[in-house]
Amino acid sequence: MSQQPAAHYLRHGQIPFFRLPCASFADPSAYAGAGAEAVLLGVPWDGGTTYQPGARLAPWELRRVSALVQRFHPVHGIDVFGTIAALDGGNVAVSPFDAAAMRERVEAEVAAVVAAGAAPFVVGGDHSVALPALRAAAARHGPLAVVHVDAHSDTSTGDLWGDEFHHGTPLRHALAEGLVAEGQLHQLGLRGAWGGADDFAFASGHGARIFPIEAIAERGIAFVMAEVRERIGERPTWLTFDVDGIDPAFAPGTGTPVPGGLTSREALHLVRGLAGVRLVGMDLVEIAPPLDHADMTCHLGASLLFEGLALLALRKARG
Amino acid sequence: MSQQPAAHYLRHGQIPFFRLPCASFADPSAYAGAGAEAVLLGVPWDGGTTYQPGARLAPWELRRVSALVQRFHPVHGIDVFGTIAALDGGNVAVSPFDAAAMRERVEAEVAAVVAAGAAPFVVGGDHSVALPALRAAAARHGPLAVVHVDAHSDTSTGDLWGDEFHHGTPLRHALAEGLVAEGQLHQLGLRGAWGGADDFAFASGHGARIFPIEAIAERGIAFVMAEVRERIGERPTWLTFDVDGIDPAFAPGTGTPVPGGLTSREALHLVRGLAGVRLVGMDLVEIAPPLDHADMTCHLGASLLFEGLALLALRKARG
Amino acid sequence: MSQQPAAHYLRHGQIPFFRLPCASFADPSAYAGAGAEAVLLGVPWDGGTTYQPGARLAPWELRRVSALVQRFHPVHGIDVFGTIAALDGGNVAVSPFDAAAMRERVEAEVAAVVAAGAAPFVVGGDHSVALPALRAAAARHGPLAVVHVDAHSDTSTGDLWGDEFHHGTPLRHALAEGLVAEGQLHQLGLRGAWGGADDFAFASGHGARIFPIEAIAERGIAFVMAEVRERIGERPTWLTFDVDGIDPAFAPGTGTPVPGGLTSREALHLVRGLAGVRLVGMDLVEIAPPLDHADMTCHLGASLLFEGLALLALRKARG
Amino acid sequence: MSQQPAAHYLRHGQIPFFRLPCASFADPSAYAGAGAEAVLLGVPWDGGTTYQPGARLAPWELRRVSALVQRFHPVHGIDVFGTIAALDGGNVAVSPFDAAAMRERVEAEVAAVVAAGAAPFVVGGDHSVALPALRAAAARHGPLAVVHVDAHSDTSTGDLWGDEFHHGTPLRHALAEGLVAEGQLHQLGLRGAWGGADDFAFASGHGARIFPIEAIAERGIAFVMAEVRERIGERPTWLTFDVDGIDPAFAPGTGTPVPGGLTSREALHLVRGLAGVRLVGMDLVEIAPPLDHADMTCHLGASLLFEGLALLALRKARG
Amino acid sequence: MSQQPAAHYLRHGQIPFFRLPCASFADPSAYAGAGAEAVLLGVPWDGGTTYQPGARLAPWELRRVSALVQRFHPVHGIDVFGTIAALDGGNVAVSPFDAAAMRERVEAEVAAVVAAGAAPFVVGGDHSVALPALRAAAARHGPLAVVHVDAHSDTSTGDLWGDEFHHGTPLRHALAEGLVAEGQLHQLGLRGAWGGADDFAFASGHGARIFPIEAIAERGIAFVMAEVRERIGERPTWLTFDVDGIDPAFAPGTGTPVPGGLTSREALHLVRGLAGVRLVGMDLVEIAPPLDHADMTCHLGASLLFEGLALLALRKARG
Amino acid sequence: MSQQPAAHYLRHGQIPFFRLPCASFADPSAYAGAGAEAVLLGVPWDGGTTYQPGARLAPWELRRVSALVQRFHPVHGIDVFGTIAALDGGNVAVSPFDAAAMRERVEAEVAAVVAAGAAPFVVGGDHSVALPALRAAAARHGPLAVVHVDAHSDTSTGDLWGDEFHHGTPLRHALAEGLVAEGQLHQLGLRGAWGGADDFAFASGHGARIFPIEAIAERGIAFVMAEVRERIGERPTWLTFDVDGIDPAFAPGTGTPVPGGLTSREALHLVRGLAGVRLVGMDLVEIAPPLDHADMTCHLGASLLFEGLALLALRKARG
Repeated sequence: MSQQPAAHYLRHGQIPFFRLPCASFADPSAYAGAGAEAVLLGVPWDGGTTYQPGARLAPWELRRVSALVQRFHPVHGIDVFGTIAALDGGNVAVSPFDAAAMRERVEAEVAAVVAAGAAPFVVGGDHSVALPALRAAAARHGPLAVVHVDAHSDTSTGDLWGDEFHHGTPLRHALAEGLVAEGQLHQLGLRGAWGGADDFAFASGHGARIFPIEAIAERGIAFVMAEVRERIGERPTWLTFDVDGIDPAFAPGTGTPVPGGLTSREALHLVRGLAGVRLVGMDLVEIAPPLDHADMTCHLGASLLFEGLALLALRKARG
Repeated sequence: MSQQPAAHYLRHGQIPFFRLPCASFADPSAYAGAGAEAVLLGVPWDGGTTYQPGARLAPWELRRVSALVQRFHPVHGIDVFGTIAALDGGNVAVSPFDAAAMRERVEAEVAAVVAAGAAPFVVGGDHSVALPALRAAAARHGPLAVVHVDAHSDTSTGDLWGDEFHHGTPLRHALAEGLVAEGQLHQLGLRGAWGGADDFAFASGHGARIFPIEAIAERGIAFVMAEVRERIGERPTWLTFDVDGIDPAFAPGTGTPVPGGLTSREALHLVRGLAGVRLVGMDLVEIAPPLDHADMTCHLGASLLFEGLALLALRKARG
Repeated sequence: MSQQPAAHYLRHGQIPFFRLPCASFADPSAYAGAGAEAVLLGVPWDGGTTYQPGARLAPWELRRVSALVQRFHPVHGIDVFGTIAALDGGNVAVSPFDAAAMRERVEAEVAAVVAAGAAPFVVGGDHSVALPALRAAAARHGPLAVVHVDAHSDTSTGDLWGDEFHHGTPLRHALAEGLVAEGQLHQLGLRGAWGGADDFAFASGHGARIFPIEAIAERGIAFVMAEVRERIGERPTWLTFDVDGIDPAFAPGTGTPVPGGLTSREALHLVRGLAGVRLVGMDLVEIAPPLDHADMTCHLGASLLFEGLALLALRKARG
Repeated sequence: MSQQPAAHYLRHGQIPFFRLPCASFADPSAYAGAGAEAVLLGVPWDGGTTYQPGARLAPWELRRVSALVQRFHPVHGIDVFGTIAALDGGNVAVSPFDAAAMRERVEAEVAAVVAAGAAPFVVGGDHSVALPALRAAAARHGPLAVVHVDAHSDTSTGDLWGDEFHHGTPLRHALAEGLVAEGQLHQLGLRGAWGGADDFAFASGHGARIFPIEAIAERGIAFVMAEVRERIGERPTWLTFDVDGIDPAFAPGTGTPVPGGLTSREALHLVRGLAGVRLVGMDLVEIAPPLDHADMTCHLGASLLFEGLALLALRKARG
Repeated sequence: MSQQPAAHYLRHGQIPFFRLPCASFADPSAYAGAGAEAVLLGVPWDGGTTYQPGARLAPWELRRVSALVQRFHPVHGIDVFGTIAALDGGNVAVSPFDAAAMRERVEAEVAAVVAAGAAPFVVGGDHSVALPALRAAAARHGPLAVVHVDAHSDTSTGDLWGDEFHHGTPLRHALAEGLVAEGQLHQLGLRGAWGGADDFAFASGHGARIFPIEAIAERGIAFVMAEVRERIGERPTWLTFDVDGIDPAFAPGTGTPVPGGLTSREALHLVRGLAGVRLVGMDLVEIAPPLDHADMTCHLGASLLFEGLALLALRKARG
Repeated sequence: MSQQPAAHYLRHGQIPFFRLPCASFADPSAYAGAGAEAVLLGVPWDGGTTYQPGARLAPWELRRVSALVQRFHPVHGIDVFGTIAALDGGNVAVSPFDAAAMRERVEAEVAAVVAAGAAPFVVGGDHSVALPALRAAAARHGPLAVVHVDAHSDTSTGDLWGDEFHHGTPLRHALAEGLVAEGQLHQLGLRGAWGGADDFAFASGHGARIFPIEAIAERGIAFVMAEVRERIGERPTWLTFDVDGIDPAFAPGTGTPVPGGLTSREALHLVRGLAGVRLVGMDLVEIAPPLDHADMTCHLGASLLFEGLALLALRKARG
């Protein structure tokens, strides 16, 4: 269940994530049968976007560029796809019009992955795909430590746009529904002007630990991640990575960009800095290919997914 | 002197269409007070898009480029903005998430325009904004003659995407709801592969007159429009213009392009060919600025709106 | 062996040509087993490009946009994918550096398709992929009628670039090797300045019938195709379509553009105008996605392939 | 003084127009010494642009793509660069800030070309470079027949922008200064809304013959050019070609686009339709490379220049 | 209810900056009446550009993206738009051809703003708009401390381009005219090759303090700004921010880019580092939207303006 | 043999590297005659590219943007083009199809440069142009110290693509052929996933000193370069700079991008950090202009070449 060689990619006109085997999506029980430890699922949904749409196209483009990513992680010193069994579970088939159905379907498919004992890697789509994924993961693992990379707090209410469940609200719901363990929301990269002085009050009131970009710039990402790691300990952990946490120079392909974000190196180090944590799943959201240039954002996204998979491999290898 | 709320930004389109005066959107009765004969309304909605989104941004971009359009129509020989009183009614403020609310709001705002005795010019947004506009117009004028320019028939059922009201269905509803007068749906520019042999059966069964692109290419747009004009006679007429009726070379900025469409000259002549018809309103939809190049599609869209306004002026001038 | 429904495309992260079934490329004999009548093969090769490269990426991008093409051809009135068994045979795996190996491999794979009784549809890549395809087809069917759409004659010698087999020479070799039946090279769309007065002498000397763009513009594509059809009669026919035969406005994504070419409608009518001809294969070459805008050239390319497949279906349906 | 072979272009890092020899600009008398019959001059000036600038960059980009144009014109059947001695005279060095100095300098350099008995081919830059070129040509040849291709009449007054000499006024000055022979302004491609009913009154009052795009579409470019040719007779003729006469689909790289213009084929036929006329010079203006896509407009521009040069060669060959 | 003249379009920027109220530009005395403390003025001028033009379009695009900026500055902990009264004063209507008129008009309008007791925020346009703004500000406040962010020294003479007042000379004039207080020109971000060893001699001779990018990289922006702040003390201060001070990766939309500049975080920190300074005005120049990607430069520009406005609010709040 | 003034650039339509004099490529012995100390050679070759091609176009685009680079290096305090005699040697004319001929020709031309006592600056083209350049340099100077900036190790075998000499193998050959002095391969910027645990074994086995990006980020480029400088000592040194060593945000125009690379400032400092080293030549490769945005990568490339030339000047000035 490892990567195919590059010739396969040339030969086979179609491209699964990282040249991995594909699961038969008609039968998710195949996950367990195949001994899958990680399953990548695309969610072509951008119906929760408030500004520039386009994230619905990310799963296809990320698959395409992920073909360039090899198997061995030189910093961790580990053969990622030789250590864990990963596969491409296809996309969650969603109508572009029905947010409730999307949430239901994503929750069901992520639940099938975790039921098979595998870690889901959800490739959005916009950030509203994260909530059902967190629900399924928390249903299995209990309240989670959540590492949340983003320019925005994503704890808006329904007041602004007349909707409770768009891409600016998943973390509010996750906190309100008890999906996050006490004091275990770690928000990194937040920045930009707020709507008011109490924008972060909800998150803070729920014990969130907020690292605005200024704090990261000042203290360094390694130091920050050491603190995050220590606070998480052995808790089951979910990484929800909104690509707009990264500066538009490195990740232009996103719909609500905010200047002054993470560099690509900081972003990669951020995920790498979770080494040792018990990762139970990850989502990567808000990549909007129509706004990208030279696949820059997609290549970075594929690297971030690889870093996430490497965390799984590393923990397995270390026992 | 502080910021307006975000909804204001949605509502107030600014840089007015064609440098026209703006109506105070707080008070649509101002339309009548101002003696408006045409009111342009933007609808920044693309929640009904099945493939590439982005049409929500069209009202702003069309306003911007429309500033280049002057007032005198040399072919008709008429000073359009000197003949009819036109104004920019702003945008219909819609949440990007709630299709039912969008339809309700567009219908109400278009109804306010027609109630004031003016012709609405609705600038989408995707094609799902046309249905509520047609509802409001038909409520006022009775069943309409509808001239429908498009690559697609837009008479899909809800089967394909699990939704009855996306951008592929407005004409089905218009026919089913009796908004179109008997035998008065005129579809121009249709082309491309169909899903099955009976794709046009619904429209044909309702008496639609279909001019696929091959018919237009063979007979010439002037000849075709003469036939359309004759069949319409004095009926109140609505023009619903999906920009993908035009070839992608001339209108690349659209989400579901189909090769082989109208040229820009044919498109302009098509609208011009309705001279004499009793136009009661128009919508221009499916312009997706993020996919445009050098504002080409937006410039063409502004010209098409000007052609539509010229029809009003011409009819008034001719008595 | 027909198209999958659109939901499949959403669900399955990967995209075969026209949502068709894929052949196991490990076993080309599967073609016959599956009763395939048409097999699409990608050739990601642009090692024969003299100016702007990039055509190597076309097979992936054409697969992606071909997902939007439905099954029923309304002008011919035929359900293409319901009439013929078509499948995606994957890509011919070629090293980007070895032209001789590419030619050998393409010839072998196309030979496997024709050996199975199916018609190959070769999706380049640059025009140098056409020669080995023609060799395999002629080996099976004898000298062919060849319909060649292009801005260039492609009968250069090796003098210019010191190589006999680049993208400007395939037709010279095809003529010299006797792959083309006497007087059965039909060249359409040629234009632009020549290197000298005898640029077309080689082709003419071999009995080629040349329709420069001026002739097509003057006489009309329908008239021209009627003549081509009549001259071909019942001969086995290969269509080699270089997308630069089309004007850059409609097909910007190509490496050696020449202004003044076919419109998209003429290009579609050109292929359609071969209705009734005994088509034994087709290649579509020189689409360079990095130079495309809004997938315009790719969408047109997918439509041209569909038109080619429709010719097969039509002939089968008519007996 | 003919073209260099393609290898020269590869070898020599820099690229003169059409791979022609370069004149030493320090000594324009070299024109005569070299027996030059045509001299190409770039004018990197866009200080007269009212909307989107960028035309200052055209001379470099047109040189680059002109390297692809070969020497033999197959429709006229003439070896253009083998028949006339053409050379690249470099750019007219202009400060981007001083319009008066630009006009003075262009007039002087064009005068040097005509003094040497050669025909100037001026590559703008915006349309304000045409006036000084016309002045120099008329000073030599007397009042000229002027063929003016454009979307705009370019006979504005200084009222609109507070300046008499921007890119919307060159033809007004040419008429007012008597540079145009009585009744010998031929304007082709005009279209779009006017500022008022008398926009063309000035030109008409000076006997201009106006062919709006509708007339060309209806009568055909061949018929129109026959009429133009006949009216010109043996008069010395200048062709001033504003690329926005062409539709934005074919020529997106321009600063004030107007939908509905000439196709690329019509544009090429237009110039070709001047065969036999006594051409004494040409300018090609308003190509704005930053707005172009895939060099489409630049390639078309290079072809139009080649068509102009072919007119010279043809007349010489025919004696 | 007819069209406004074209000058209106130039004048009235619409979509107001940061969704602020608009001043009636017919009556600048309204500034004082409204108690304005900050007035944003667009200057759509790029007639002083030596390389790639396009900055004339920045005021419209910056207004558009500024709609996304909220009101509360979390680092300073201040409600910016709730603390100071800011409004959009529209554009300074300038002909694109008359640099002297532009300078006169900008000086007059900025003078009106400062006369009303408000701080002008001038949004260019190219850097030549800064000189008249500095003149008006110094006329009111006396010689200023000037913080100048740029890749270039902007102290060129008229020798190079034959003009004294283009975008490479504003600081020379400001120094020569005594607009800058003794030793109070602070230049940050300078880099790239010079024309000669004494390029900075003029500035240095006038007591300028130059922080080339290497100094900023080595010492850190916080340290540098502390030094700047200390040297400025309580002097009235103007911030002139040329966006090419920032690296092209973060600000590609500019006409004379120089690699190796400020990061977006450094740029934001630079402005933030002026906290406490007595800012009397700011200009932001050289954003060229046609060269931008995904609005990256415009978003950053809007953030920099917000940072400047926050300085005003902060000083007011602190008394 | 110094730079021409900017007016020359305006005047002369064509643009040599840095506005330098051009060598007559017919006679390389002219190099010595002219006393050349540095010769810039373009190599328009991308036939060794494994993913996205386009690097063949770099020599033209780099010449164009290099016109903006001035002569004085302010950090080193040296007038580069006043200190050393540099000239533009034109392009090495290569067929795009024959890799062996390219290597032979590049080696011969670089040999001619070194034979004349000048340092070659080779502007690719893809990285396969480096091997013949290194051969020619080592033939003259003996085994070299090689500073290799890259995302990739470029020590692949022929296994992957069936070819020994593509753009992923030059360093393997250089090591195997003894072109590199013992322990004198310094690789900087390497990163991304490997194909296996022993990817760097070949290089390490040959004594290469590898500085992956993580080491540079942690230790700082200045520290790293001090170490490199010390290890090199007085050895003749070649700098081979693959632009993909830089992060895609700063250098998007390249065919095999890897996220997380050098910043533009680090890249410039890297070359600058070689001050004092005995540089005998440099190549700059893998810039693919079709993938660039706003010439960002080309501007950075021109700056890197200037930094390399400054090293020569500095060493000469210091004696």
